[in-house]
Amino acid sequence: MSVVGKRVQRPESITRVKGGGLFADDSKYHGMLHAAVIRSPVARGIIQCINTESIIKKKGIEGVFTCKDIPGKNVIPVVIDDQPLLAERYVNYVGEPIAVVVAKDRETARTVAKNAKLKIKELPAILDILEARNHPDIHIFGDDNIFKHLKIRRGNPSSAFKKCDIILENIYRTPYQEHAYIEPHSVTAIPYPDGTIEVRGCMQCPFYVREAVTKSLNLPESKVRVIQSATGGAFGGKEDVPSLIACQAALPAMKLGKPVKLTYDRTEDMIAMSKRHPSWTYYKSGVTRDGILRAVEVEYIIDGGAYSTLSAVVLFRGTVHAVGPYRCPNVKVDSYAVATNKVPCGAFRGFGSPQVLFAAESQMDELANRLDMDPVEIRRRNLLRVGDETITGQKLKNSVGLEKSLDKVIQVSGWTPGGCKQDGVGYGFSTIFYGVGLGAGGKHMARTGARVIVHADGSVSFSVGTTELGQGMITVLSQIVADEIGVPLECVDMIPTDTSRVPDSGPTVASRATTMSGNALKDACTKIRNTLRSEASEMLGCSLDEIDFDNGLVSNKGDSIPLIEVIKSCSFKRLSLSAEGWHTSPPTTFDDKTGTGDVYVTYAWATNLAKVKVDRETGEINILKIWSAHDVGKAINPTLAEGQIEGGVLQGLGYAVMEDMKSDSRGAIINPEFSTYIIPTAQDQPEIVPLIVEEPYPDGPFGAKGFGEQPLMGIAPAVANAVFDAVRVRIRELPVTPEKVWQGLRNK
Amino acid sequence: MSVVGKRVQRPESITRVKGGGLFADDSKYHGMLHAAVIRSPVARGIIQCINTESIIKKKGIEGVFTCKDIPGKNVIPVVIDDQPLLAERYVNYVGEPIAVVVAKDRETARTVAKNAKLKIKELPAILDILEARNHPDIHIFGDDNIFKHLKIRRGNPSSAFKKCDIILENIYRTPYQEHAYIEPHSVTAIPYPDGTIEVRGCMQCPFYVREAVTKSLNLPESKVRVIQSATGGAFGGKEDVPSLIACQAALPAMKLGKPVKLTYDRTEDMIAMSKRHPSWTYYKSGVTRDGILRAVEVEYIIDGGAYSTLSAVVLFRGTVHAVGPYRCPNVKVDSYAVATNKVPCGAFRGFGSPQVLFAAESQMDELANRLDMDPVEIRRRNLLRVGDETITGQKLKNSVGLEKSLDKVIQVSGWTPGGCKQDGVGYGFSTIFYGVGLGAGGKHMARTGARVIVHADGSVSFSVGTTELGQGMITVLSQIVADEIGVPLECVDMIPTDTSRVPDSGPTVASRATTMSGNALKDACTKIRNTLRSEASEMLGCSLDEIDFDNGLVSNKGDSIPLIEVIKSCSFKRLSLSAEGWHTSPPTTFDDKTGTGDVYVTYAWATNLAKVKVDRETGEINILKIWSAHDVGKAINPTLAEGQIEGGVLQGLGYAVMEDMKSDSRGAIINPEFSTYIIPTAQDQPEIVPLIVEEPYPDGPFGAKGFGEQPLMGIAPAVANAVFDAVRVRIRELPVTPEKVWQGLRNK
Repeated sequence: MSVVGKRVQRPESITRVKGGGLFADDSKYHGMLHAAVIRSPVARGIIQCINTESIIKKKGIEGVFTCKDIPGKNVIPVVIDDQPLLAERYVNYVGEPIAVVVAKDRETARTVAKNAKLKIKELPAILDILEARNHPDIHIFGDDNIFKHLKIRRGNPSSAFKKCDIILENIYRTPYQEHAYIEPHSVTAIPYPDGTIEVRGCMQCPFYVREAVTKSLNLPESKVRVIQSATGGAFGGKEDVPSLIACQAALPAMKLGKPVKLTYDRTEDMIAMSKRHPSWTYYKSGVTRDGILRAVEVEYIIDGGAYSTLSAVVLFRGTVHAVGPYRCPNVKVDSYAVATNKVPCGAFRGFGSPQVLFAAESQMDELANRLDMDPVEIRRRNLLRVGDETITGQKLKNSVGLEKSLDKVIQVSGWTPGGCKQDGVGYGFSTIFYGVGLGAGGKHMARTGARVIVHADGSVSFSVGTTELGQGMITVLSQIVADEIGVPLECVDMIPTDTSRVPDSGPTVASRATTMSGNALKDACTKIRNTLRSEASEMLGCSLDEIDFDNGLVSNKGDSIPLIEVIKSCSFKRLSLSAEGWHTSPPTTFDDKTGTGDVYVTYAWATNLAKVKVDRETGEINILKIWSAHDVGKAINPTLAEGQIEGGVLQGLGYAVMEDMKSDSRGAIINPEFSTYIIPTAQDQPEIVPLIVEEPYPDGPFGAKGFGEQPLMGIAPAVANAVFDAVRVRIRELPVTPEKVWQGLRNK
Repeated sequence: MSVVGKRVQRPESITRVKGGGLFADDSKYHGMLHAAVIRSPVARGIIQCINTESIIKKKGIEGVFTCKDIPGKNVIPVVIDDQPLLAERYVNYVGEPIAVVVAKDRETARTVAKNAKLKIKELPAILDILEARNHPDIHIFGDDNIFKHLKIRRGNPSSAFKKCDIILENIYRTPYQEHAYIEPHSVTAIPYPDGTIEVRGCMQCPFYVREAVTKSLNLPESKVRVIQSATGGAFGGKEDVPSLIACQAALPAMKLGKPVKLTYDRTEDMIAMSKRHPSWTYYKSGVTRDGILRAVEVEYIIDGGAYSTLSAVVLFRGTVHAVGPYRCPNVKVDSYAVATNKVPCGAFRGFGSPQVLFAAESQMDELANRLDMDPVEIRRRNLLRVGDETITGQKLKNSVGLEKSLDKVIQVSGWTPGGCKQDGVGYGFSTIFYGVGLGAGGKHMARTGARVIVHADGSVSFSVGTTELGQGMITVLSQIVADEIGVPLECVDMIPTDTSRVPDSGPTVASRATTMSGNALKDACTKIRNTLRSEASEMLGCSLDEIDFDNGLVSNKGDSIPLIEVIKSCSFKRLSLSAEGWHTSPPTTFDDKTGTGDVYVTYAWATNLAKVKVDRETGEINILKIWSAHDVGKAINPTLAEGQIEGGVLQGLGYAVMEDMKSDSRGAIINPEFSTYIIPTAQDQPEIVPLIVEEPYPDGPFGAKGFGEQPLMGIAPAVANAVFDAVRVRIRELPVTPEKVWQGLRNK
């Protein structure tokens, strides 16, 4: 009676639907104060004066803290330590934090922060990446404003292009995307008399938060306890930035010796928090008449904003995924993460790949069109299969379900090449892939701990270092533990993630929670199972390998005893039914300098098919249906996997046709609220057909591999390709809005 | 640079002295309600009506809960499940809980609880143990009001007595002793929307509390998380009873879905909480003229109060210790824990042995006097040494520092037999022993888990399942971890004990925390040290066994590297520096039926010498000085060991000469406050000379064995013997008050 693979209900779902009140801002602590942040009103400037003395005199104000109050390093550690917790001399984007105000109530803190008088001398700012790169005068980062430059060199693209029959060269652009998590950032820092600081809040990566707090407050890791509260969505938007917010709360908490809560309102969150990097891509691809991709050349630039944050690693993933899931013997990729005087961008579901895949998959579609080949056929001729090599030379040994996903979409959708065509209706494909886990870019963090305790009544508590963000990790891991121990799912409970209780398990990003924590839990459960097995063999009088665990029973041939009796017997004999598990990813071999080697331990694969109807008069795009098939290795919980696909598709549709965050000429975001920044609602959801393909990943728990980011990644190109199929208008800049389509129709 | 054995400062001491505010009643939670308990005003009766409807209508009242509201079993599980959480039909002692009232504020809850109208039909009660045993009509427990009867039979006492030259038969009596912890009981239960109940409060035994809450609320163990808050003293008084208080808070918390705090005030705490069992002992001992103890016969009765609680195991320890630390080939012990209509008694430092040792050591002194032998000489002729057998036939293999403790007291005090004698000044000895750990009585709980995480910055977090009660466990265990990992003490932090995070480690009682958790931590640290050693051997290019860890350095001959570099290297290589430790006590062989076998894994040993001055006119007793030498195996922290001795001696002096809790004829305690129940203050403290003897216990961490209870245990007989030495008055009923001495002087 395995529960792995079953459509069990999420244990937290009822609580959430009923408004259980577990989110960070729901908790209140005795004596708690409220913080608010004083921010830069300009995109670039020199701070001349912060009048803290007049602020501190205001009624209800308990303190105001600037960079001078930071006992440790004034830095938010991510990849490079360039971002201050609180601005020192310069400010580099609109919304940059300068000081933290603390008051007895939130309203006072916010009002005083908003009206704080600052003297800042405004300087000229750079807001455009092409302008920023190698700007002669304005240096936001280093001499060239380039946070990172990466390259991949494979074969000989320039000579390969000469042999191509068709060569396409295009520029693609993508805008910001806002994470639009339902819960804005919130954290409470609680100081204890022994000098420990406890930080509770919504976050993806408690160990990142711990590092930031220890560095800025100059504390050892054992004195900072970070506990994730129930987190209402993240999508990468709670990867690195909670470190900043936690420090903004922890600094005054430590100084004042009282709990301090800091919750951003939606507008503040949208102005000041990370987003998907806007991008500019030059894409050149060449095929021979047989449709075989011979060479690709890409220049990929992402807008990092004012500080480097995760841009280098976001760029890395985009770079590695630049050609899409295809064989290509000749590749040249040059990619750049560039500094501008805008809000720092960061992690977002897909992590640098949706931008470049929009280019790659649009390009593939256009190549098919130019070849007069159908879009499935061109893909079949190029797609990666077991035994093939990626553009970094990584040989794929197993778990390549790409073609299966393509077959599944075609089978379920009934799509046929040039099939029955209605006017204004179009179909667009995308085939994509996603390197699972941190990969070579974060290989030193590719380890995870877990802890399992089987109690004497047969209930089980487990804890891990990764976090539940709404993706269903608790459910999936509970299913794994239930099966591994052999108890019913309802006996299994996860304890909230607490950095003082589990070893540093790295971040909860890169679709790594199921595989990494799943494997660590399996490791722990195996130890416990061995103890149970040995005890059961004594009780049943049989050898160890003759014992089956199933359905709450331990049996040997016809003979069986309830598992609970074995557990009780172990407890009586004082045998430990508590164990620690540990998992490290297999090694990667990628070499930064040559751009070659094994980058990720495995890849997830997907095919999307979008069916759209375009109004030729108005350019209005009606998304009719999306088929989205994903090779997940093994769906531990198919309902949750389908939920990931549905959610990702919808978020991808927002990126494809709606979401468009704009800044004014002085670098201020002009639509930081949901009334003007439009995301899809339930009303906008088309019919979505989630399809699961299972090509087991041998090193994953039960064959599972992560794929949570992938559902978003290929939607924009599929839609753009469908629009082209419908009305022969090619849009190379997201979002694909009616205005752009109408303009395209007019220009034809 | 070992810190084990060093006089390092307690990490929490500054915080405590400054009023850090970490105790249970200091915490407040959002939306928290306050509970108060409605109690029985009579010692025995039938509940006819509880008018909950009128209570619930009162202003500020949020709920009132009786036994009918309990979803699980109405029981506080200890040894036998006879004690209800809330009385059902009968009440059996004054102060027995009947209902819980919950209000928005504490004052309202308490006032309403106090004034609640109950209809209870009073029944005749039994308040005296001798009367209660086998009472024909009133049955409080079973048919005979006997919770437990134990016996030890060794040799042939009746024929041995016939060969004795001197036989003494006496009756000894001891009263209640109040724990007088500085912090009265307090707990808060916090319900979570997922159905988890978190219980935070002062307690010794979080796993007991968890069991009680799961049983009464009908929850699995994984759904009840018990976290100990800083606990302001316990002495056994927070062993079993916090289970009751936790359930009184958890029941309304679950029902109302809000945090509920319950704090007892001092009077309520003194009326309703457990105490040291009053006792009655018939003691017959016989010696031959050479001073050799030939036979002992004991009948030992303790007053358990209305419910059995821990009485059976308290009785067990008293029974095993009944003869004192002497060889005696012919022994007959019959002991009884008896039910009366009084507050249930429970654990208290010494756990049933101070009462019987008062008899045994008074008796020894009287035998010496009758033999005209000095009190040291008679002890030397009888005391246990390595190779000897205890009265249960347990052969002592090692770590018997009894004679060393006697020698040390004599050496330091300069006492000589019949030495220079002032009028009214007397000296009294006691030599005693204490079986360390749970022993045969609790052998299935004799296991402990621990967890150690070495963070990448070299700081260390550890957690255990035992608790800090003021005894210094955190310090001692931190010293052990610091030495075992090889880091400075200030890098080590203990995480509060949380039942969801550590496996059931049994109770924190029986002086077991240092040995059990110390050994479990050593086990965890060894695993981590092995990883560090292996990494260091690679870094230093030497073999594993050539590596030394000392003073933050890892070295091989002249070559050394900072330990932090080894830790960083492990972290970089993704090696786990987190480990779980487990320890089980060696087996015991004691057989309940025959009363023979190995009872405890080891014993601690002590000699006390009291010097008193007695006023012949008034009987006033002036305690001049106490020398107290204890074999602790190894003092992990001599200052803390001395602190235990000083505190225990003072608490023993209270028991010896001051503390006297009285009940009225209807079973109500008449002095439930510190103005009338007198305990020693700093003013009453005589000069105390704490002396440490170290006979290593090979199975203890660094040779340590527990001894925290022992300092109290032998003070009363030493003082009574000194009073006899001073004025030739023998007091056989504690406390030794001026009134009794004066009466004795008058009767001479």
